[in-house]
Amino acid sequence: MLFDINLDGKTPNYIQIKNYFKDMILRGMLQKSEKLPSTRELSSILKVSRNTIITAYEFLEDEGFIHIKKGRGAFVNEIHINRLDELTITWEDKLTDYAVKAEKLDIMKHEVLYKKGMISFKSIAPDENLFNMEDFKRAFLNRVSLEGNKILNYGYAQGYKPLIEYLIKYMESKGVNSQGKSILVTNGFTEGMDLILASLTSPKDTVITENPTHNTAIKLMKLHGLNIIGIDIDKDGMDIELLKEKLRENTVKLCYIIPSYHNPTSIVTPSQKRAEIYNALKEFEVPIIEDGFNEELRFTGAHIAPIAAMQGEGNSVVYIGSFSKILFPGLRIGWILGDNKLISMLESVKRSRNIHTSFLDQAILYEYLKEGNLEKYVKIIRKEYKNKYKFALNCAEKYIKYSSIYGEGGMHIFIKLKDLNARDVLNECVNKNVIFTPGDIFYVNGKGKDTLRLGISRNSIEEIEKGFKIIGEVIDSLHKVPLH
Amino acid sequence: MLFDINLDGKTPNYIQIKNYFKDMILRGMLQKSEKLPSTRELSSILKVSRNTIITAYEFLEDEGFIHIKKGRGAFVNEIHINRLDELTITWEDKLTDYAVKAEKLDIMKHEVLYKKGMISFKSIAPDENLFNMEDFKRAFLNRVSLEGNKILNYGYAQGYKPLIEYLIKYMESKGVNSQGKSILVTNGFTEGMDLILASLTSPKDTVITENPTHNTAIKLMKLHGLNIIGIDIDKDGMDIELLKEKLRENTVKLCYIIPSYHNPTSIVTPSQKRAEIYNALKEFEVPIIEDGFNEELRFTGAHIAPIAAMQGEGNSVVYIGSFSKILFPGLRIGWILGDNKLISMLESVKRSRNIHTSFLDQAILYEYLKEGNLEKYVKIIRKEYKNKYKFALNCAEKYIKYSSIYGEGGMHIFIKLKDLNARDVLNECVNKNVIFTPGDIFYVNGKGKDTLRLGISRNSIEEIEKGFKIIGEVIDSLHKVPLH
Repeated sequence: MLFDINLDGKTPNYIQIKNYFKDMILRGMLQKSEKLPSTRELSSILKVSRNTIITAYEFLEDEGFIHIKKGRGAFVNEIHINRLDELTITWEDKLTDYAVKAEKLDIMKHEVLYKKGMISFKSIAPDENLFNMEDFKRAFLNRVSLEGNKILNYGYAQGYKPLIEYLIKYMESKGVNSQGKSILVTNGFTEGMDLILASLTSPKDTVITENPTHNTAIKLMKLHGLNIIGIDIDKDGMDIELLKEKLRENTVKLCYIIPSYHNPTSIVTPSQKRAEIYNALKEFEVPIIEDGFNEELRFTGAHIAPIAAMQGEGNSVVYIGSFSKILFPGLRIGWILGDNKLISMLESVKRSRNIHTSFLDQAILYEYLKEGNLEKYVKIIRKEYKNKYKFALNCAEKYIKYSSIYGEGGMHIFIKLKDLNARDVLNECVNKNVIFTPGDIFYVNGKGKDTLRLGISRNSIEEIEKGFKIIGEVIDSLHKVPLH
Repeated sequence: MLFDINLDGKTPNYIQIKNYFKDMILRGMLQKSEKLPSTRELSSILKVSRNTIITAYEFLEDEGFIHIKKGRGAFVNEIHINRLDELTITWEDKLTDYAVKAEKLDIMKHEVLYKKGMISFKSIAPDENLFNMEDFKRAFLNRVSLEGNKILNYGYAQGYKPLIEYLIKYMESKGVNSQGKSILVTNGFTEGMDLILASLTSPKDTVITENPTHNTAIKLMKLHGLNIIGIDIDKDGMDIELLKEKLRENTVKLCYIIPSYHNPTSIVTPSQKRAEIYNALKEFEVPIIEDGFNEELRFTGAHIAPIAAMQGEGNSVVYIGSFSKILFPGLRIGWILGDNKLISMLESVKRSRNIHTSFLDQAILYEYLKEGNLEKYVKIIRKEYKNKYKFALNCAEKYIKYSSIYGEGGMHIFIKLKDLNARDVLNECVNKNVIFTPGDIFYVNGKGKDTLRLGISRNSIEEIEKGFKIIGEVIDSLHKVPLH
């Protein structure tokens, strides 16, 4: 018997040897009661210690592939692998409309993706180089030694208690009255939004949202089969008259709004306007789903309270929070703050879908936050992003011919072009290795073909200038050709 | 102005001071252009360094609550918090049937829960004391230093590539032919099952499952509004004749099965029977959702290949894997192995729901696995659980009057009583501080009132003997009273 075992030096040798024999047995190349080579023999063939072979054989016995007879050697067990007639299923024909829709709306499958060498303005994720890994490692080691092994066992659907308490304090520090309210920890904003829509809306229900708005929210609303009414926005947020009109004309289940550093326009809805929106919705008892997106990235002006704070003891505002746009998106941790009864129901829905969010991640994040690392970090990134943001704004003014440009903060700029289709611009830019997000994906009604979003959080100053220049040149060249 | 700032010594002082003033301002107790105490004054009042106060004030300025005039002091900004009329929503009236059902089926809300001092046989989670934290910490530190900061930024919906590759090898080592198949990493078994049902079934569709079966799977099938056909099982698994009959009578969307250490009965469906089930389903082109639950906890007998391996190049078996029953459930990591096209669709659904599973956790788990720690660990726990399991089996025989007792491995025992309702037994046991899982929650059709599951993974030998004895005594006492 010849052994073509190539030990790769990565996984331990005894495991590779064990797997080799498992494979041989499963393929039927080693038959029932066949004898394996002696440990001495094999160790000299493979030039590994005899103990390595002995360990490998012990594992094979543990896993039920062989039995070892003292002094006689190792013998293969009878393994039934009755290979069966194959059944080939055409899975495409078996999928629900929901799954098909999810694939259709998956921009990772249908939009131009980053390739090496490109300058990409698609991302609005934080720049990981700003993460302080030492603080993070310390948080891990401290929490793990404090919690011990149990932090790796099952936890609770609502979340890691200390983190929940921290987040309630955090929301109170934004002026929120937390009486009668609680928090559910979720796998980021996305799960929070999905849980809320699953629990409060049924297909064909009508919901209201700013237009444009966060494309992930639009995707989820479409996946839940909702009738979406988009309210146009200007530099101070929703068109309040249009909002009132739509509220009079429709029975509206809920209103989704991003009042601060709105995605994609990054505008901030002023306090007075927030009050008007709240009052308009209040008249029809329409709950507000407030997306706290990027609230932490205030660069200028005075603090503005979230609507969740303005409602005082009211319970009609459900706030979805997440640090993912500034801190550790890879952990996928967000939260929902809302009325106790609602949170308790959402907790059951969450439990039915994935039991709970990683307790290890929640525990690390809590330790990181309670040490004041978020404040330290935000102080630093605010400076960083603010400078980058101002530079980008200047470059846009300087190089890109636009009809209007939006942005008060955050990590991106939103541009409305002069009678040009942003996708035509994108197609040209791709050839010049520059990509960005065409604005139409942020609109609920096919509008916005002349808009684009430029995310700059992960680009260097040099890249921003170079990239914006190229985009500007493409736009100029397209202005010269007759419109289609 | 009096300062009732009580520094708690937990979070850094400057943050507590900052939050104190934020709160004062948000409550309107500090008004526009009011002057904050000088840093010198406040540092002497609070007995903290002046730098602490300066830092706190800088944060307040950063966050837009005050502005600092050089040499003049710190002054409160104008903060609009127009408190609005409250709207109180009766959320109970706004919930979807889906959410209401999720709450109804949430056993954490409606079954007796563990209280301190109780002996609980409810859990089948692993005993965290067997986790090797040193290996885990090493895995964290190694992976984080290898991957650097980017491991904390966004990842990919399908999962962490090295982990995916490891899991494919892992499935191959179970005899699976991975040609044309791939893997999606999920938040444990539960999300995997939910994604599959959402993507392959619509309300009123008919599915087949063993009866009894995993209660979480039943819950999800009910939440998806499915018509569930339960096939009775005996010590060798499904009643094959009944299965064939139901297949002839119904159009079946899929069949969910737990062939190894079945939950709750912990029986193992033998190879020959697996083949018969596969062939019966093949005739009607019904896909199999194979739950790999506890496959790693084989205590006796030769290796048995999963159905996913028996199908060879076929693609009709979708395998859901998870280590959660043996390793780190708190991380919530599982996987789906299936046909490439199916996995690609599930990936889009997964992305729409939570973008991806924690990349940090996936990376740590990968590092832990690739170092051979799983094999090392399983070798240890197999011995541990096997002994515990045999001891528990003996105690059951000795103390508990049953009509039949099931179990070939895993971490639990399933018992059928002699004309007694397990809930009556439970009610009595609760008074004696012993709890277990009544079997009826594992049945799809109200059967199993005379059954119970005893999970023993986290109990000491002493607890098992003491607890089983009490259960036995309660049963004997109930046998004496006339049946209702």
